[in-house]
Amino acid sequence: MAFNKITDEVLAEIIAIAGADNVLTGAVELEKYSHDETEDLQYYPEVVVKPATPQEVAALLVLCGKHNIPVTPRGAGTGLAGGALAIMGGLMLAMERFNKVLDIDERNLQATVEPGVITEVFMNKVAELGLLYPIDPSSKGSCFLGGNVAHGSGGPRVVKYGTIREYILNLEVVLASGDIIWTGANTLKYASGYNLTQLFIGSEGTLGIVTKIVVKLIPAPTRDVLMLAAFPDNETAASAVSAIFRAGVIPSALEFMERRGIEWVKEKEGVYFDLKDNAAAFLMIEIDGTDTDVIFGEAEKVNTVLEQFGCTDVLFAETAAQKEEMWHMRRIMAVSVKANSIYKEEDCVVPRASLPVLIKGIKDAGTKYGFESVCYGHAGDGNVHINILKGNMSDEDWNTKLKDGIREIFELTAFLGGTISGEHGIGLVQREFMPIKYSPIHFQLWRGIKNVFDPAGILNPGKIFN
Amino acid sequence: MAFNKITDEVLAEIIAIAGADNVLTGAVELEKYSHDETEDLQYYPEVVVKPATPQEVAALLVLCGKHNIPVTPRGAGTGLAGGALAIMGGLMLAMERFNKVLDIDERNLQATVEPGVITEVFMNKVAELGLLYPIDPSSKGSCFLGGNVAHGSGGPRVVKYGTIREYILNLEVVLASGDIIWTGANTLKYASGYNLTQLFIGSEGTLGIVTKIVVKLIPAPTRDVLMLAAFPDNETAASAVSAIFRAGVIPSALEFMERRGIEWVKEKEGVYFDLKDNAAAFLMIEIDGTDTDVIFGEAEKVNTVLEQFGCTDVLFAETAAQKEEMWHMRRIMAVSVKANSIYKEEDCVVPRASLPVLIKGIKDAGTKYGFESVCYGHAGDGNVHINILKGNMSDEDWNTKLKDGIREIFELTAFLGGTISGEHGIGLVQREFMPIKYSPIHFQLWRGIKNVFDPAGILNPGKIFN
Repeated sequence: MAFNKITDEVLAEIIAIAGADNVLTGAVELEKYSHDETEDLQYYPEVVVKPATPQEVAALLVLCGKHNIPVTPRGAGTGLAGGALAIMGGLMLAMERFNKVLDIDERNLQATVEPGVITEVFMNKVAELGLLYPIDPSSKGSCFLGGNVAHGSGGPRVVKYGTIREYILNLEVVLASGDIIWTGANTLKYASGYNLTQLFIGSEGTLGIVTKIVVKLIPAPTRDVLMLAAFPDNETAASAVSAIFRAGVIPSALEFMERRGIEWVKEKEGVYFDLKDNAAAFLMIEIDGTDTDVIFGEAEKVNTVLEQFGCTDVLFAETAAQKEEMWHMRRIMAVSVKANSIYKEEDCVVPRASLPVLIKGIKDAGTKYGFESVCYGHAGDGNVHINILKGNMSDEDWNTKLKDGIREIFELTAFLGGTISGEHGIGLVQREFMPIKYSPIHFQLWRGIKNVFDPAGILNPGKIFN
Repeated sequence: MAFNKITDEVLAEIIAIAGADNVLTGAVELEKYSHDETEDLQYYPEVVVKPATPQEVAALLVLCGKHNIPVTPRGAGTGLAGGALAIMGGLMLAMERFNKVLDIDERNLQATVEPGVITEVFMNKVAELGLLYPIDPSSKGSCFLGGNVAHGSGGPRVVKYGTIREYILNLEVVLASGDIIWTGANTLKYASGYNLTQLFIGSEGTLGIVTKIVVKLIPAPTRDVLMLAAFPDNETAASAVSAIFRAGVIPSALEFMERRGIEWVKEKEGVYFDLKDNAAAFLMIEIDGTDTDVIFGEAEKVNTVLEQFGCTDVLFAETAAQKEEMWHMRRIMAVSVKANSIYKEEDCVVPRASLPVLIKGIKDAGTKYGFESVCYGHAGDGNVHINILKGNMSDEDWNTKLKDGIREIFELTAFLGGTISGEHGIGLVQREFMPIKYSPIHFQLWRGIKNVFDPAGILNPGKIFN
């Protein structure tokens, strides 16, 4: 893909479309837009533009199409796969001015939101009305809803409430052609032709630019129980996971954490409880609902399963403050690990009962290739985040040998019926591993679809697949 | 689209692939395959083939591609939009021999199923293990899971448990090229490139032939309450629907029925209860769960809402037999109406709070264009099935004037943010109405996608769009 640079003439047109205040070109201003949360990668766009309307986005896409300039859409820059990196330079479309909750429709339990709204801001707004939007990635305090749609984001509550695919009803998108369409309808069901809404979810800005999102809401649960169960080793903890569902309970969160992850959070911020010596791995389990007796009854069932599977200790978060602290511990784990070492993060997902095998395989790969890892994540979904630490690894090993280790982990993941990413997306850094799971026919179909939406290939080039 | 006829030479090749016992050509044998449940439409395929393996399907598609012969895939023939009609003749791919439940994986709560398995047979099999697959269309006793996937089928429990899109994890499909691929992974989450699984759901056999389905299962609820609430008119009943959710209750079914629908069921089979004179419309509400107190508490909340909205009478189904009879009444409504008159069925879906407006609009259109209709359906999803009766309408009016009325109903549906079909699909008979909702750009994108998967256009031609 050979793209053109942004000339002064094109820059003038960009400014004419979006206004000088919303066009950044200086190196200092661009720095913030040169990276997301992916490793230590940095790529500078030539120009950052902050449009505020679908019409401005359309004019920018038409302009870039005409001059063969790559366009990298960007939400809050919290991505972990490099999806928002301007690897070809060109124009970065920063969506931060699309920051309005346009409508919360209490009668239909739907909301219309712009893609630059911070996920937690939106969640809090609907919570005030007794409603729940349950897709809350760890980065919810800073990530944008648009980025969540682009990456098919998840979070801990997917296990009970379903994926983002159940909550995104309709999208306004700007196509590379400059056409502005709604992908579907504002309805809970849809059987009217190819589902473009679903196709856009997880397409990482390669098919078009999302400018409005219609979201489904549900009545919020009013009560919950939160517990942290300690196990003597990873496999034992992971084995308990599928048994919980088989006991008839669907927790609202079922998170796995290695001891090392909690220790790092403790070092960084302190947590209110002590870790017993024999506790090597943890399950954090939340059960929510509307009735205290039912929730406690389900917690009792879970407890029985935990004991059967060799859990040594269960700590209940008693107060709202303790619950918040336990959740905070889980959420800042990636940040805490990152503060200690250069790291890579993988996001493997497998059928949940295969989690013990996957986690053992990750550790075995570490032993074989000489890397340390901290694993945690959404065990109830079979989705594990693997933080691979550079630690004492030489730069050479980090850049070469490590890849063989990662490759082995993905091969095991694919063998178990899983795939490369459960909720972070493929972006730039997982791209090279896609052939482990997918055949040339998949690539051909994906490229064909891409070509239908973006024949010039200007939208987020080099992401997901080549 | 100009296709070729099946010559004797091609027929010999078809027989060589599938075996003579599995190839039908006689008019008597073909009759069953010349219609589905759509109105009184009839189109004969030239040949019906019943393959039993993905490899046979692949060989048949390659053969038909080579000779430019149209292929119409067919499940159980219970479709209501003409999706399984062989409108171009050619080869019908009857999937009835793909009738095995290959695996029920209790540890992962997943199953692998062939597309020719009857939905209810599968539901009963997993129910024996305490598990639920909640996508149960009224035709569950005869429809196939493959047809459900092809049409994005729903049913009454979608309102609580989510659409079929949440339950289909992965598909084995045979492409027009003869390539056999898995569309995704056997995982609860997926953020690894364009989601082909979701694209195939609702694609009505136009992109490829599904040969295996990986399904998500959940623990089954153990208790339920079922009630039938009577209202003095349609709008009052429909108005109560969104208030129930706003009261914090998500029923496991929330069905709307006009009195006339129940009367026809009574005429056909009898039902155990009497309809009071002032009861013009009904909501059938099921609440399920695992705890009797909670369910009754929720039923109490619902009751309060019903009273506020002018409900005149609530009948509880007390025994398992009464529950089954009440459900049976709802399920055979279409069949009962059909027994009385030639009819057309529409499947509009709107945001649920707009249901009263839609239903009023349907009745107004009937008055204006001289047709009678019976409405019922999944009110909790804003999805209404409109049975339009020919009754005393002249053939001429039925074939011309009626369309103007239907067009007005769809225009209102689109105006309300809804769309043409919520769960029946577009198939043949709704095709002409698609431009009411969708722009030429949508058609261009759909055609582009179709062309990626099926460049020769042999797969179910003439369905969804031209």
